[in-house]
Amino acid sequence: MSKIKKKRSMRPLDIKNGRVDMSHGAGGRAMAQLIGDLFIDAFDNELLSREHDAAMFSLGKGNVVMSTDSFVVSPLFFPGGDIGSMAVHGTVNDLAMGGGIPKYLTAGFILEEGFALSDLKAIVASMAKAAKDAGVVIVTGDTKVVEKGHGDGIFINTAGVGVVPEGIEICGDRACPGDAVLISGTLGDHGVAIMSSRENLSFATEIVSDSQPLNDLVEAMLQDVPQLRVLRDPTRGGLAATLNEIADQSGVGIELDESQIPVRSEVKGACELLGLDPLFVANEGKLIAICPPEHAEKLLKTMQAHPKGRNAAIIGQIVKDDRHFVRMRTTFGGVRMIDWMAGEQLPRIC
Amino acid sequence: MSKIKKKRSMRPLDIKNGRVDMSHGAGGRAMAQLIGDLFIDAFDNELLSREHDAAMFSLGKGNVVMSTDSFVVSPLFFPGGDIGSMAVHGTVNDLAMGGGIPKYLTAGFILEEGFALSDLKAIVASMAKAAKDAGVVIVTGDTKVVEKGHGDGIFINTAGVGVVPEGIEICGDRACPGDAVLISGTLGDHGVAIMSSRENLSFATEIVSDSQPLNDLVEAMLQDVPQLRVLRDPTRGGLAATLNEIADQSGVGIELDESQIPVRSEVKGACELLGLDPLFVANEGKLIAICPPEHAEKLLKTMQAHPKGRNAAIIGQIVKDDRHFVRMRTTFGGVRMIDWMAGEQLPRIC
Repeated sequence: MSKIKKKRSMRPLDIKNGRVDMSHGAGGRAMAQLIGDLFIDAFDNELLSREHDAAMFSLGKGNVVMSTDSFVVSPLFFPGGDIGSMAVHGTVNDLAMGGGIPKYLTAGFILEEGFALSDLKAIVASMAKAAKDAGVVIVTGDTKVVEKGHGDGIFINTAGVGVVPEGIEICGDRACPGDAVLISGTLGDHGVAIMSSRENLSFATEIVSDSQPLNDLVEAMLQDVPQLRVLRDPTRGGLAATLNEIADQSGVGIELDESQIPVRSEVKGACELLGLDPLFVANEGKLIAICPPEHAEKLLKTMQAHPKGRNAAIIGQIVKDDRHFVRMRTTFGGVRMIDWMAGEQLPRIC
Repeated sequence: MSKIKKKRSMRPLDIKNGRVDMSHGAGGRAMAQLIGDLFIDAFDNELLSREHDAAMFSLGKGNVVMSTDSFVVSPLFFPGGDIGSMAVHGTVNDLAMGGGIPKYLTAGFILEEGFALSDLKAIVASMAKAAKDAGVVIVTGDTKVVEKGHGDGIFINTAGVGVVPEGIEICGDRACPGDAVLISGTLGDHGVAIMSSRENLSFATEIVSDSQPLNDLVEAMLQDVPQLRVLRDPTRGGLAATLNEIADQSGVGIELDESQIPVRSEVKGACELLGLDPLFVANEGKLIAICPPEHAEKLLKTMQAHPKGRNAAIIGQIVKDDRHFVRMRTTFGGVRMIDWMAGEQLPRIC
């Protein structure tokens, strides 16, 4: 986040009524003002305020894990979150799913000319709060502006690094036949919250996105069950896509038990109304864990004892299958193939 | 870069005539195919092909430097480069300007529905080549798709990490009165190359962007003159903005000698035609270096001996000035204030 300080006097930013214009991305004084008044203040930390194009820090011992995600969610504000909090949670969770303790994040903004500064301020404040809550620091960033009609308000990219404690090895290719498959809570909350706010649907109970950082839950799980083999957050494409990926990467099959898969009744209802299947709907605050069967009960207890894993469940097991199928025993006693979607179910969900 | 492998058969990607559609960002099989066929192949490396949402590696000793940049340059292809090569060079250079040896990069793509797959393939190939040339590895990534009319073909974000050798401390706040200010080569080439291709101008000699990675040049400079205090690449806002930043951060003034500032004659001519000032025009392959005066000649020789510093010059010095002014002695013998621009000169230059 370079070009930061104000040098000589400029009119203060009109956060309330002002809008992004092309000069905010031009590398001159207007950009310096935007960054200084809006970003540096909110992300308040020593590394960022050194105002270099790159941030320097020490990571200590252990392997480093690195991840990135861009966020184009629409609408920008939704029940339970906004594009800013999501942009932090998404990268924090990707790092945690690699077994890492998330440490430092970067933030890249692509703003559309005309975007309201008040919305930008709200989003940046939400990012700052999310970072603080997750225990990570936003250390450097970048701002670009595109002409009206060539963007969509705001897109955010975050990238992050974390440290993997010695002895931990989590990867999608480590699932073995016999292993237990666990989920940390209810499915579909994020996707349905987005869709309902997009369609202006209102339900008796408001459906709220589950967007949240999972690094504290992962830390508790790894402490109790270091034998954990796979962690993955079922975002775009939902549980179905994520389990198909793991089946492919590990060269195994997966068998699920529908009766064990937690879905809120209001989410189930909304899915029926919207023609969605909760297994394919994005989550932003849930994880899948795969561990040897003898540790499954202990892992489940640890998860259920954590506020972010209260509704955790053992939902299936890994099986030998050269075709790498994911199948589900339905509540009616049949068996259903859970393939991943060929096409699109929910555009711009994250 | 998750969601990667193809599982069961799909029609192969039609790179020649195909276009990005919303399904390529939906987390399903079409996205897996796009990533597998297009990105994994091009960025070919073991970390990426593990197909986790996060990549793991060891960084060894030393401090870590981290940076990010989004790229929205228009047009996407221009003389001397394209958005893909620039996206690699930009982050590599930001890391190098922190005194770091760039190591690992992430890549985030925001694609507009309808974008030609052939262009995407060309851009990705160019990124892969740029990464190879700079000695960095693209280890993880992300792809999002937005509806037609809500983006502009392709936006790319890269973030990167590098390692800072022990004993090296480079920062924008370290310039001291008396220090020499050096530039590694001619100014304005990138900005003018973009503007001429935008305006469809043709000159007798084609003006080519200077977009290139500078990490090898920096390594040579640090080896010979570890006393280097400040490194910065004058991108958006050009030399003027960058020197004003440094003056602010270090709490000093800067005096330049116009006769020493290298600008190609064809760039000078084009700037006159386009109403631009080379001091304010973006560069993508040049650096500013500031060092104690007693090391300036040695540093200059090292730079001039390197292919990327052949036209290096000592262009000015740091002075005591509580107002932090940047001033230039002109070739006519006058003194001109080099303020940074309040507004916009060249939108979407990077």
